[in-house]
Amino acid sequence: MIKNLLKYNTNFMSAAKVGKYGFTKAELLSLAKILPKLNQKLAKKISSTNFSFRQLPYEQKMVKEIDQLANKLKKRFQSLVVVGIGGSDLGARAIYQALAGDYGCCLLSQKAMAVYFLGDTTDPRPVADLLEIIDLKKTVFYVVSKSGDTIEPLTNFLYLREQVVKKVGLKKHKEHFIITTNDKQGGLLQIAKKEGYLILPHAEIGGRYSVLSVNGLLPAAWAGFNIKQILAGAKAMDTVCKNDKYLKNLPFLFAALQFLAYKKRQQNISVIMPYTYYLRDFGFWAKQLLGESLGKAKRGFTPIAALGPTDQHSQMQLYIQGPYDKIITFIQVLKLENLKVPKYNNSELAYLGGHKFSEILNIEHKATAVSLMKNKRPNGTIILPELNEYYLGQLFFFFEMATVYLGELFRVNVFDQPGVEQSKKYMYGLLGRKGFEKYKKEINRY
Amino acid sequence: MIKNLLKYNTNFMSAAKVGKYGFTKAELLSLAKILPKLNQKLAKKISSTNFSFRQLPYEQKMVKEIDQLANKLKKRFQSLVVVGIGGSDLGARAIYQALAGDYGCCLLSQKAMAVYFLGDTTDPRPVADLLEIIDLKKTVFYVVSKSGDTIEPLTNFLYLREQVVKKVGLKKHKEHFIITTNDKQGGLLQIAKKEGYLILPHAEIGGRYSVLSVNGLLPAAWAGFNIKQILAGAKAMDTVCKNDKYLKNLPFLFAALQFLAYKKRQQNISVIMPYTYYLRDFGFWAKQLLGESLGKAKRGFTPIAALGPTDQHSQMQLYIQGPYDKIITFIQVLKLENLKVPKYNNSELAYLGGHKFSEILNIEHKATAVSLMKNKRPNGTIILPELNEYYLGQLFFFFEMATVYLGELFRVNVFDQPGVEQSKKYMYGLLGRKGFEKYKKEINRY
Repeated sequence: MIKNLLKYNTNFMSAAKVGKYGFTKAELLSLAKILPKLNQKLAKKISSTNFSFRQLPYEQKMVKEIDQLANKLKKRFQSLVVVGIGGSDLGARAIYQALAGDYGCCLLSQKAMAVYFLGDTTDPRPVADLLEIIDLKKTVFYVVSKSGDTIEPLTNFLYLREQVVKKVGLKKHKEHFIITTNDKQGGLLQIAKKEGYLILPHAEIGGRYSVLSVNGLLPAAWAGFNIKQILAGAKAMDTVCKNDKYLKNLPFLFAALQFLAYKKRQQNISVIMPYTYYLRDFGFWAKQLLGESLGKAKRGFTPIAALGPTDQHSQMQLYIQGPYDKIITFIQVLKLENLKVPKYNNSELAYLGGHKFSEILNIEHKATAVSLMKNKRPNGTIILPELNEYYLGQLFFFFEMATVYLGELFRVNVFDQPGVEQSKKYMYGLLGRKGFEKYKKEINRY
Repeated sequence: MIKNLLKYNTNFMSAAKVGKYGFTKAELLSLAKILPKLNQKLAKKISSTNFSFRQLPYEQKMVKEIDQLANKLKKRFQSLVVVGIGGSDLGARAIYQALAGDYGCCLLSQKAMAVYFLGDTTDPRPVADLLEIIDLKKTVFYVVSKSGDTIEPLTNFLYLREQVVKKVGLKKHKEHFIITTNDKQGGLLQIAKKEGYLILPHAEIGGRYSVLSVNGLLPAAWAGFNIKQILAGAKAMDTVCKNDKYLKNLPFLFAALQFLAYKKRQQNISVIMPYTYYLRDFGFWAKQLLGESLGKAKRGFTPIAALGPTDQHSQMQLYIQGPYDKIITFIQVLKLENLKVPKYNNSELAYLGGHKFSEILNIEHKATAVSLMKNKRPNGTIILPELNEYYLGQLFFFFEMATVYLGELFRVNVFDQPGVEQSKKYMYGLLGRKGFEKYKKEINRY
């Protein structure tokens, strides 16, 4: 038995609590029956491309190498800029925000080394603004693109490269770039080889399953976080996933309830709502994972990244009294910084005094969950004892494996994204890339 | 005729382009018929509570007073912290990000005065972190709560107050707090009066319609933006809304198409997707406005704040190939900073060289809009010539009036939020507030 596991409370998801909008035990049992076979099937696939993300938690050698590299970089640089988009960006971002908070860039090395994120847009302003606040001589750029052809990060990369060359000269500029891309082809690999940049090959997995590879772990190690513990958490969750009992296998349980909500009750919206400020970016990571993996073949629920208690004052009215078209998953963190509200006696606010901030946060979660339930709105809660590397690793792997289970239930390939290929061809055509002339003609008809 | 108006392109929303998933001209005309009567009705309501948000663009005196106050504050302080949640936070935040970008706190007074946002959570970490980076002696706190009873900002306020008192003494601390709350009741008003804080009364409108009042304008003026131009933009859009012709009255047109999608085609998800990095927070503002105003009586579409091109690598797969349950509204900005991609010849990335960043951004928007349309996914585009105070004012007012029109079409009161009252009572009960004992008992049964 594994100690120190996150919990998943599904009480308020059940028909017993929310009537016809919740799952019945019979429904759940009919899905639970297939779990042992599903686990066998997945075990066989583990060494195949894409599915091998499941082996990442066991890569001890990788951890060592990344830590060594990060330590070396820290001696030379002050800031690291991740240049990526989608799966090459969101995972690293989620780790950094969860453990360093929002003010990483201002706090500099007090809590964590500074990490900036760029390359998830071709808007000129973020790159121009970033260049005003970093010292290029003391900055290393970690450019990540699996295909080596991704327009947004590579546009930024070419611009940044020019700036660095201007600042430190062509010869020295190569020290400032580290590249993660596939080791076979693409424009980024070509340039990296030519310029002599350090290349850390992209694992043979999809970008949205890459947070536990070098993509997510190098920025984390640089920042000063314990990446071994992140993987230890993921490993613990992998063990959970080998369990054939559906009440123990929490990612399967989560997947089954999401599937039933969509399939049996037309609840086509699934809200992920952390009750912790610094899991906001985790919500964006989860939203990509679920949305891009499952949204195909004219099906797929729409994931929404919400935030508690913030969205009590924004989306909760809709969630509580709008249509019965959604289910909600809260992520609660029990232990947080020990801060207390000071007393202001003889005032209407006196009742707030003496309460811990974290206690109030948990009260807000409870009040919201119960209100939703009383209004027949199904909601579940993932409970983390605290927000550290170990539980973060569990949380990432929980969602990755839940997505794999969901793919099996929906019978879709969770590793492809055929829907976005057409617009890429249009873009290449409009940008004048060779071989894409006919797409330019096609789109210019509109 | 008004010059310099934003545009709204509905071409790809129509049945002519996306078949049965788009609106028909007949449907739209049947709604357009009621517009003159609707406008008459709204004109009569304009001076009533809540509806009076429509008079804000005309408050010249307010502009003057706010600018004067902001100038006075600038002489004395370095940073301003907005302490609010929901409508007391999201509008000010949207203006600041749109015009100052993400690095306001790091750039300090280079582009804009520093503004921080706190109080939209009771998580202890953001307040602890913020206190590490600001100089309390040089910081003024703008605390906003219409009711004066809102738990999240007031928890933070009490904590910050104690810190400021520790730093500058009880006598001097009052200079550091400016309060916006109703002028009749509530804990915040009580304390503000007792301590002698400057009180700027909350307009008699709902928080989510308050961005063009002192709530949004004081932080904007402090930051150095032209708030007169923000209101001028809103005024221009108000004139548009007086037009009884549906093709000229863009907010009505937007409302009609949103209504038809939900009502006639069960498209229960409405994505707002700016193709500009710094309209991210605008999306969060719009999401509250639409969600909280319309999500009631078991109806209301669910607004989603997405971002282009970022979400091409996250949600677009789902939008293009998932279920036909959503419509998308892009917000495009034509003119942006003049940055070019450097050439890297003799490489596979050579084709990127020479293009402007903004050109690539617009190409990405076009490729995505056409791909969606070809896959029968309805999408429209709001087009801003550039991102400045004037067009931002138009954009805010566009969404506010569209929401009012939607309320008329859905026949719901867009100014209340009855659904969140129950959980507030539970919270007060659990926190031990007098008069709420029975709610404590009730919730503790679960």
